[in-house]
Amino acid sequence: MYEVELKCRADHDALREKLAELGAEHVDNRTQTDTYYDAPHRDFAETDEALRIRHEQSVDREGQPANSEAVTKITYKGPLVESESKTREEHETVVDSEAALEGVLSGLGFEPAATVEKDREFYTLEGYTVTLDNVRGLGEFVEIEREATEPEVETVRDGAVDVLSALGLDPSEQIRTSYLGLLLAAEDT
Amino acid sequence: MYEVELKCRADHDALREKLAELGAEHVDNRTQTDTYYDAPHRDFAETDEALRIRHEQSVDREGQPANSEAVTKITYKGPLVESESKTREEHETVVDSEAALEGVLSGLGFEPAATVEKDREFYTLEGYTVTLDNVRGLGEFVEIEREATEPEVETVRDGAVDVLSALGLDPSEQIRTSYLGLLLAAEDT
Repeated sequence: MYEVELKCRADHDALREKLAELGAEHVDNRTQTDTYYDAPHRDFAETDEALRIRHEQSVDREGQPANSEAVTKITYKGPLVESESKTREEHETVVDSEAALEGVLSGLGFEPAATVEKDREFYTLEGYTVTLDNVRGLGEFVEIEREATEPEVETVRDGAVDVLSALGLDPSEQIRTSYLGLLLAAEDT
Repeated sequence: MYEVELKCRADHDALREKLAELGAEHVDNRTQTDTYYDAPHRDFAETDEALRIRHEQSVDREGQPANSEAVTKITYKGPLVESESKTREEHETVVDSEAALEGVLSGLGFEPAATVEKDREFYTLEGYTVTLDNVRGLGEFVEIEREATEPEVETVRDGAVDVLSALGLDPSEQIRTSYLGLLLAAEDT
């Protein structure tokens, strides 16, 4: 399966009104702290890969931690296979112990390189996941996502563009740089 | 914490009698399939490290799968810090998806190198874990294990030697090579 994903900057208050008008369903809110790792044997910036530990906590509408426990995941993202929609191979699994996972990566020579923190508000609309992202240091964004098999990728991408338009956003203002990339670029200036 | 561990060859039928005499408590039986990985950037045989995916299934006394689900763990073992008792730094965590973990490792360039399969019968005796291991291709062994903080290592090792003697085994017949090492050596001959 591939992850088809479009992203652009968007004012969240305006977006919430639009989502309500279109009958989007609110799913949940989560805070994610993503730690990206450097590899000892490859320059991930050059190979266009990523290795990440994600610490995720469900929160209520006011941003307070919900009753459920925090979850830790390890994720590997391969290079782009379809650049238009940022489609990549991805492998992800939940792990029991974040500390042990950090120990495994550190033992193998992988080092934490950058951290991305964001508050995410999830909706579903016409089969797509619409996510309102508030990224620490970057501001407000929206992401339109859906999984697709390889032959579906183009159709699913066209549908994502339609959702973006329906939300009153301009598909030509898509941002193809990851939050990590945007943060690193902001640090450089 | 460090894992203090002694190991030697031992006839399991004789050992079970001894364990019963000494009042050891049977804990459970498990089948473990361990896949060891080669790294793309280091020769683990030279650096004395290991990276392993363990697939573990609880079994009943007859070796039939118990009701509990199989568990997958990732483990990193660092180089020996105390060679006498095979003490090493170790990081291990349970993961939800074995297939996703294999995808992460494969994406990063790690490759499966060797597999060790064993049936394990666990007992506790005087604070130590006594394990009767039947290793596919190698035969019957016993392991005496216990966790220790750094200052405790020597005392805990002496205690493990005492347990080995109490079980009628000769501490001078200890094997310091891992099952993986023994299997690779057997393949080479």
